[in-house]
Amino acid sequence: VIVDRTAPRVSDRFVAHTIERIGPVDASAAAEMQATLDRKTKPRRSLGRLEELCCRIAAIRGTADPGALPKAVVLVAADHGVAEEGVSAYPSEVTAQMLSAFVSGSAAISVLARQAGARLVVVDAGVREPFVDPAVTSLRIGAGTRSFADGPAMSQDEAVRAIRNGIGLAEELSATGIGVVALGDMGIGNTTSAAALTAVLLSREAEEVCGRGTGVDDDGLRRKVETVRRALVANAVDGADLLAVLSAFGGFEIATLVGVILGAAAAGLVVVTDGVITTAAALVAARLAPDAAGRLIAAHRSSEPAHALQLDALELRPLLELDMRLGEGSGAALALPVIDAALSIAREMGTFDEAGVSDAGA
Amino acid sequence: VIVDRTAPRVSDRFVAHTIERIGPVDASAAAEMQATLDRKTKPRRSLGRLEELCCRIAAIRGTADPGALPKAVVLVAADHGVAEEGVSAYPSEVTAQMLSAFVSGSAAISVLARQAGARLVVVDAGVREPFVDPAVTSLRIGAGTRSFADGPAMSQDEAVRAIRNGIGLAEELSATGIGVVALGDMGIGNTTSAAALTAVLLSREAEEVCGRGTGVDDDGLRRKVETVRRALVANAVDGADLLAVLSAFGGFEIATLVGVILGAAAAGLVVVTDGVITTAAALVAARLAPDAAGRLIAAHRSSEPAHALQLDALELRPLLELDMRLGEGSGAALALPVIDAALSIAREMGTFDEAGVSDAGA
Repeated sequence: VIVDRTAPRVSDRFVAHTIERIGPVDASAAAEMQATLDRKTKPRRSLGRLEELCCRIAAIRGTADPGALPKAVVLVAADHGVAEEGVSAYPSEVTAQMLSAFVSGSAAISVLARQAGARLVVVDAGVREPFVDPAVTSLRIGAGTRSFADGPAMSQDEAVRAIRNGIGLAEELSATGIGVVALGDMGIGNTTSAAALTAVLLSREAEEVCGRGTGVDDDGLRRKVETVRRALVANAVDGADLLAVLSAFGGFEIATLVGVILGAAAAGLVVVTDGVITTAAALVAARLAPDAAGRLIAAHRSSEPAHALQLDALELRPLLELDMRLGEGSGAALALPVIDAALSIAREMGTFDEAGVSDAGA
Repeated sequence: VIVDRTAPRVSDRFVAHTIERIGPVDASAAAEMQATLDRKTKPRRSLGRLEELCCRIAAIRGTADPGALPKAVVLVAADHGVAEEGVSAYPSEVTAQMLSAFVSGSAAISVLARQAGARLVVVDAGVREPFVDPAVTSLRIGAGTRSFADGPAMSQDEAVRAIRNGIGLAEELSATGIGVVALGDMGIGNTTSAAALTAVLLSREAEEVCGRGTGVDDDGLRRKVETVRRALVANAVDGADLLAVLSAFGGFEIATLVGVILGAAAAGLVVVTDGVITTAAALVAARLAPDAAGRLIAAHRSSEPAHALQLDALELRPLLELDMRLGEGSGAALALPVIDAALSIAREMGTFDEAGVSDAGA
């Protein structure tokens, strides 16, 4: 178990207060949900992980009758100074270009969110050249981070501001009736940032956490490993000082996502992680607030090597394994129909009593 | 590779003609689909198995533009004489009781089909006491099979009639515009039938193919293994004589499902398998018509041990692994949103050209 149940202190009062509000999930609601499922016309536990999902959601929502839950995909974008080190197959301009594709409805996540019946919330947390559009929520911290190869990516003040932004966003979503928040990310260079965060938080070597991201070639992968290795030396932070870790290696979108997770957990929302970037944010959030881990559902296992390590550390078993590595929240969006299906089973299936079916499993 | 490319002869002219109509899938449509996907605003192949799914569907449908495909879940029910041997946790009456739950909309598959936007087609292929209802399609062969513990479950004539019924049903579905057929089954005792079929077709021992089905206890599992072992001796059929194998160990629902698969494959429909019963039918169909295997999509891997063996033999990698073991087509229905998502990616996602996004992956 990687999660330490004693949460570290955070000096910012708003963030600290949010963390304090994140208590354990409701085990009795989960037990009540399982009892309800056991009365339904099917052999006990025969719906496997769909039943586990029902119970987990009941525990998170604090009720055995969670109903149907409106869903949002929160896609946070930002640029990374570390992209200058030649660690990505794409140039930084693509981050802003993709913002345009997200709001026009033509990007993968636009299609998948629509298909899943989820609201798509596109956030600019610090793209180099802002893409100004009413459909983009601007929570900008700056015009991209600095490269963390030789020093911190951002200041601790910037990290805290991004976390606060994320908390505020989650609270707004909760206030508008959203029950499930699926996380997404966009940011050229951000698998390098996620790799470095994972290396520090899980005490791993650079080679173990670096993958090909969006498809970097062998040379690029070597540069990526070398950059992370150099950065780990240059930013010799105490792994227990989470704000120091986050500001050293994070991105503005990752810090904002940490806030979204904390805010969502405090508000009783179900949080669905995507790939290696959003799960890096989840690792940080679960270190800050250990009970946040129980609020997470892992949508899928991506093909990035660090992702499996993160999921293990968070004790999360992903719902899907579809060899995806796009990001944007695409894996998280694909898991939303599975969550809907679980909730509809809880809500709509009949019982042995109602149906007059013999329950030999009783 | 278990699939023998020389299809055996079947004497029935309608069945033989259907088998002849099942040719190889369209590899050029698949290649064209991949080229289309490679132009979209995402790193190449970054949607992993979702892209493979698009290509497989293009190959099956014979077009790189398959559009959105209307879906049906075909749930075929029948009773099994072998249930008398005490191999199931439930009595045979439950099969008919569940038919009532299926059409009333309260069963798991009713909920999941509705959730997936699929038409639910409930078929009685030979339940002991027929549940007469306008919402049930009656394709009855008899009032349940005989126990195959000491002799064949049905006559070869009955097996052929069931296959013909299934082919006719698939043709009707195709005529009404259905593009995807998800398979489901109901029949107390039918995991024993599927286990015996798998043992014969894949040359396995009874212990390797028997699982707990809907939840039989240790004694029940021992009886199940013993029954299959006895049946394999009592029905010493030539494994290459598929009609003999099917009539020895099959159920009316399994034989009907073999027909549904053959008819669907001949009509160019996408066939989605569920668990160990529908995949046993798929094994038989793929032996009768080797090119039928390429028309299948495996929805999930159930917790029945024979299922993994069947999937390997058919060279199918399931989309989901959710530890489900209900049957009814519940796993197949859960995979339908993944198929819809893949098709919507093919249909709705924009290209690098349209979006003005830099394609470094080119």
